Amino acid sequence: MTLAERVLDGDIRAAARLMRDIDDRMKSAVNELKALYPHTGNAYILGLTGPPGAGKSTLVDQIVAAYRKKDLLVGVVAIDPTSPFTGGAILGDRIRMNRHAEDSGVFIRSLATRGALGGMSRSTMDVVNVMDAMGMDVIVVETVGVGQDEVDIVSTAHTTAVVMVPGLGDDIQAIKAGILEIGDVFVVNKADRDGADRTARELTTMLEMQHPEPGAWLPHVVKTEGARGVGIEALVEEFEAHREYLKNSGHLQRLIEERNAKLFADTLRDELFDTVFGAIRESGRYQQILDGLRERSTDPYSAVEQVLAAHAFS
Amino acid sequence: MTLAERVLDGDIRAAARLMRDIDDRMKSAVNELKALYPHTGNAYILGLTGPPGAGKSTLVDQIVAAYRKKDLLVGVVAIDPTSPFTGGAILGDRIRMNRHAEDSGVFIRSLATRGALGGMSRSTMDVVNVMDAMGMDVIVVETVGVGQDEVDIVSTAHTTAVVMVPGLGDDIQAIKAGILEIGDVFVVNKADRDGADRTARELTTMLEMQHPEPGAWLPHVVKTEGARGVGIEALVEEFEAHREYLKNSGHLQRLIEERNAKLFADTLRDELFDTVFGAIRESGRYQQILDGLRERSTDPYSAVEQVLAAHAFS
Repeated sequence: MTLAERVLDGDIRAAARLMRDIDDRMKSAVNELKALYPHTGNAYILGLTGPPGAGKSTLVDQIVAAYRKKDLLVGVVAIDPTSPFTGGAILGDRIRMNRHAEDSGVFIRSLATRGALGGMSRSTMDVVNVMDAMGMDVIVVETVGVGQDEVDIVSTAHTTAVVMVPGLGDDIQAIKAGILEIGDVFVVNKADRDGADRTARELTTMLEMQHPEPGAWLPHVVKTEGARGVGIEALVEEFEAHREYLKNSGHLQRLIEERNAKLFADTLRDELFDTVFGAIRESGRYQQILDGLRERSTDPYSAVEQVLAAHAFS
Repeated sequence: MTLAERVLDGDIRAAARLMRDIDDRMKSAVNELKALYPHTGNAYILGLTGPPGAGKSTLVDQIVAAYRKKDLLVGVVAIDPTSPFTGGAILGDRIRMNRHAEDSGVFIRSLATRGALGGMSRSTMDVVNVMDAMGMDVIVVETVGVGQDEVDIVSTAHTTAVVMVPGLGDDIQAIKAGILEIGDVFVVNKADRDGADRTARELTTMLEMQHPEPGAWLPHVVKTEGARGVGIEALVEEFEAHREYLKNSGHLQRLIEERNAKLFADTLRDELFDTVFGAIRESGRYQQILDGLRERSTDPYSAVEQVLAAHAFS
């Protein structure tokens, strides 16, 4: 049996193996992904983002528990920004998630952001597709959401939850203005802290000022205390309300199509570069370019034009 | 006169215009960048990164003032993560930098991160090259450093300063472990806060555990209070010490070469994708692919292979 067939049979080890192959950018993984593709498009994809210190992992842990109570299968993809340097995951995440370790209805995968720029978004979509084909009902994608990469990753989710905490200072407030437009649900976590009500009120006011069109989704603000499990039920209800809205409005179909178009474009970008860069490195052209740049007999822009022209792209 | 000639003549307005053209990805900007390229490689590029709320902008403001006192020309490139959504800059930055607004020895440019993934790094290098050709002695690149994008951007600097603050919680501590390897100088800002000494001590211990090779640079930890200007002199001295180290060890030349290689690769990636994607959109092939994905008669991976094969890349 191929890995893909074993994944479709619900073989957890085969899925883990395929995800490692995806992470390692093994060529064989592409064939498995092709075979799985017709079996995707069923899972509900939930993106969770917010600044460091917002308590996202604890919240994800609680959300997983809530969906497990409904007897749904849950996948978690945690994007780990420390890994380009250390190769390791944020230990805390693993520890906090540990209570699901014995639960075969939960599949957790950490992704290292060691790849090329933009590669992360594609790897995440590939891994989500594997979990989707495995039969996971809900897939939670967690990122530290400050940079463009992270925002791009959660933008491929069906529902995006933005997690804030009270009193993280002015910069957070400013960033908040920027992420208003990506959130479908806003969470004020650590709601027992001073200023939680004020943060929730400010967020609500800012959201109301966006003047959504009639019939459009109006994001709500939900207060939670992840550590004590407070507000999780209300939060999951809000997710379900947004999911219903997506289904009934036809937006879900559009989101699924946009996700596939993005996966195509990201893959095309990577493969084009890998192919052409590989070719010029092998032919010795790349070394010539490096020498030219060092001697300043050429510049990066002219060198690119010459490579494009040599490949009949000018 | 071309824009490039005017930039080399020190025309600030021409430089601002060219940077806008770069931001808008205007084709004409490439020719100007080519003309400027031989005049680059002289500026000292200083990257400053750290989590939101670390007081980076205030610190940059103080660093600018310190270099201005030495009568050096200073450029600032501020990367603004909120912009993909709002189109606006973090207001605070602009306000805090305002005291340099009348100083013609300071050139400040905010860059919106609205581009494609990875595009940011390239735009930043292009803008830095314009400032370099303009004759700026020091160029400070400031990013919110949590995601891969931001880390990638500062990794093209000659000296990278990582800014931390005391007591931002466990997640920051974990991320700290990940950024140890990118920092040449570590700053504990807001050093009047509780726990500053402890954070500085922990950082120092972690750095010493890295066991640098004999003769290698050992990053130091500098405590500052950006708002009151405390510790700025010591910080700038540390930058200068690192710069001397780079010059004397030959690392500076290597960094400059790596930067040019990266600019070449980033530009190649963008241009290849733009060219091929433009071609399949124009020929109607892209619409066929989208239809196939919708009907699931194809998958993103096979579609990419077919496009590569059609361009004789298989």
